[in-house]
Amino acid sequence: MKTFNAKVNVTLKKSVLDPQGQTVLEALHSLGYKGTENLRVGKYFEVTLNAQDENSAKTQLKEMCEKLLVNTVIEQYEVHLS
Amino acid sequence: MKTFNAKVNVTLKKSVLDPQGQTVLEALHSLGYKGTENLRVGKYFEVTLNAQDENSAKTQLKEMCEKLLVNTVIEQYEVHLS
Repeated sequence: MKTFNAKVNVTLKKSVLDPQGQTVLEALHSLGYKGTENLRVGKYFEVTLNAQDENSAKTQLKEMCEKLLVNTVIEQYEVHLS
Repeated sequence: MKTFNAKVNVTLKKSVLDPQGQTVLEALHSLGYKGTENLRVGKYFEVTLNAQDENSAKTQLKEMCEKLLVNTVIEQYEVHLS
């Protein structure tokens, strides 16, 4: 068994409105950061897991995301393994 | 002016308890993912910003994080620019 560190970023799909992100963007504009154009807010998970090998870790992470961590109807995710 | 895409990951500092992460971890265990050992939940921001150069973008992002996006008393952050 090896130990892997995974970082999972979850965001709303591009086609889904993100009012929280819009609010943060407006707050940045009102603080003077006029150069910011687009901002989306999401969730972030840092997971440590034990698995036989990298492929097994990836498979487990994909399952975990699709069963629990991500609402795949409105959200998309990216996994980075190290 | 150039356009930069930044990804900002915000997590609670190691020394701060993360009851939300603990709950997600227990949920994963009860779904059968016994190999997961540690899990922390955080926030994730995807920002598009215009800046003169990479250094200026980095400086602006650092300021935005410290003024608005991150509570530096209990949270830490990582910025990835591309």
